[in-house]
Amino acid sequence: MGCVTVLADSPLADSPLAGSAFLRACRREPVPHTPVWFMRQAGRSLPEYRALREGTTMLESCTRPDLVTEITLQPVRRLGVDAAILFSDIVLPLRAVGIDLDIVPGVGPVVAEPFRGPDDVARVRALEPDADMPYVTEAVQLLVTELEVPLIGFAGAPFTLASYLVEGGPSKTHSRTKAYMYADPAGWAALLDRLVDLTLAFLRMQVAAGASAVQLFDSWAGALSASDYERHVLPASRRIFAGLADLGVPRIHFGVGTGEILRLMADAGADVVGVDFHLPIDEGARRIGAGHAVQGNLDPAVLLAPWGVVAERTHDVLRRAAGLPGHVFNLGHGVLPETDPDVLRRVVDLVHETTAAQ
Amino acid sequence: MGCVTVLADSPLADSPLAGSAFLRACRREPVPHTPVWFMRQAGRSLPEYRALREGTTMLESCTRPDLVTEITLQPVRRLGVDAAILFSDIVLPLRAVGIDLDIVPGVGPVVAEPFRGPDDVARVRALEPDADMPYVTEAVQLLVTELEVPLIGFAGAPFTLASYLVEGGPSKTHSRTKAYMYADPAGWAALLDRLVDLTLAFLRMQVAAGASAVQLFDSWAGALSASDYERHVLPASRRIFAGLADLGVPRIHFGVGTGEILRLMADAGADVVGVDFHLPIDEGARRIGAGHAVQGNLDPAVLLAPWGVVAERTHDVLRRAAGLPGHVFNLGHGVLPETDPDVLRRVVDLVHETTAAQ
Repeated sequence: MGCVTVLADSPLADSPLAGSAFLRACRREPVPHTPVWFMRQAGRSLPEYRALREGTTMLESCTRPDLVTEITLQPVRRLGVDAAILFSDIVLPLRAVGIDLDIVPGVGPVVAEPFRGPDDVARVRALEPDADMPYVTEAVQLLVTELEVPLIGFAGAPFTLASYLVEGGPSKTHSRTKAYMYADPAGWAALLDRLVDLTLAFLRMQVAAGASAVQLFDSWAGALSASDYERHVLPASRRIFAGLADLGVPRIHFGVGTGEILRLMADAGADVVGVDFHLPIDEGARRIGAGHAVQGNLDPAVLLAPWGVVAERTHDVLRRAAGLPGHVFNLGHGVLPETDPDVLRRVVDLVHETTAAQ
Repeated sequence: MGCVTVLADSPLADSPLAGSAFLRACRREPVPHTPVWFMRQAGRSLPEYRALREGTTMLESCTRPDLVTEITLQPVRRLGVDAAILFSDIVLPLRAVGIDLDIVPGVGPVVAEPFRGPDDVARVRALEPDADMPYVTEAVQLLVTELEVPLIGFAGAPFTLASYLVEGGPSKTHSRTKAYMYADPAGWAALLDRLVDLTLAFLRMQVAAGASAVQLFDSWAGALSASDYERHVLPASRRIFAGLADLGVPRIHFGVGTGEILRLMADAGADVVGVDFHLPIDEGARRIGAGHAVQGNLDPAVLLAPWGVVAERTHDVLRRAAGLPGHVFNLGHGVLPETDPDVLRRVVDLVHETTAAQ
């Protein structure tokens, strides 16, 4: 079920990347070494990123293929990671279909007119990739000519996007969003249906342009109990994974604080499930169940500690993951801006050396 | 071990409150009905609170016995809850020993000079209750003459207090705090030791003045993995619970997002463990283990939904808790400011009616 088969007519079948450590781990095939990449590897921890971004807003950066390409490549060059992830933002497709929003430094996405009820659902119109986001296709096409490792496309999951739309910005409690889903389950489902279509179009265009895998970020799903997730969110996320199945690329599913819903996130149709830092990765794998690779899960705060601690904790993740059929090493959340990139580089080397010796 | 026995020489033994539903549930004794109170019941959801607070800062309000008394009584009068909780703030004792901090509206506690290393530990000097916080004793003494239900005293747990001191304010990642504990475990333990002494003094003075129970809030403990909690936090919190044992009052332990560490939080020495809204309360009780009462766990966001949903979800908590030896009904986190107090009142009545009929 969760296994990815590379179809004969898939763009990946003939690609030299098909045998890459990252894609092999996603497919739970034997690997030359455990592959590693870092969520938010393209970002503020790199001085060359900070220099490049100076004077350019986040949203503008995401719409300029030259900047997207360079920023996506920076960590691949510097860190030696086994995969690149497209530099973008989960709210980009919302903006592309006309939702008035901005990414405010130090705050996050802010929606000018938050969604209040059924009348707002139509504001999420259908995404026309060529007309609405030509810069994404262009950036992905540029990237795949330059990259020697797979490129991961990504999108925000419907619940997380809906939370931004309903709350009007980041929220600690997601209380308006939950009240919306409790008060009007049918209206909520209609909103998520629109977001499924948007997300599917956004992810499919990235794969069509050359991305070798996709990650669905349900950043806020951990705010929900398992029963709320199962009833109000899982059907929508399941439609996304099903709608990607014909592409033959690994599908990764990740959220923070999702210990109670890992099995459901796997059941949504993911090939790879990300485990955050709250629980040991072998316990995460046990909850996820057979038939899925796992990704994770070093606490990003560990990277701020002395190297001895970083090495010990990296070894601990590798030891716990050693018996798993497929493991992609990653952090349990995004790279913190204050992280020293040299430490990231050393972790990559340590993961490679440790697992190549096996 | 976890059981509270009311000693013959305890202030509670002769009190009419000893037979109250709340204290009986905490001791896992038969109850006339399931007792209920709400975290943050004294607060912004009540119009009379907002009126009383107008023009007075949070910290000033906490140091005026007249205001503390009135604010603590407001929800008892209006909602009919089975316990009062002292109106205060977890950073109050830090401020009382001279740490320069403020509670900034919309932000939370902000520490003027965040802790950076071992030299800062001495800034947490010993708390002298009579000299440093006479207003707390005065408020508690006023309250217990007025109240017909038990008064819960409370304090922040050492990890959560340390996080405010190290981060300088609320943090999403607690990365500085974690880096501190990883880099210098002995220095970290020394900081927590000081905070244990402070917290113990703060809680003991509340009980000495008349509080019938205490709750230790480890608001941020859910940011830690079980192994980090066990190694770096549990010893300190255990010292607090042990240091309260001779008082003979129920000790409650609560944090949000603590599904992975509930057993450890119980093992710290709590009589009652609070379960947040991420997992069903019966599953929480299973993780906590025998010998403890449980408190919780309706999602506060549910209270923003139509009454039918509120009633259904309240019944669900009661159904799941029906077989447990001790259950204190509460929310899985604090009352949201936008909550209609009439809904809180209806929940209290529903809990009482449903469980009295059993």
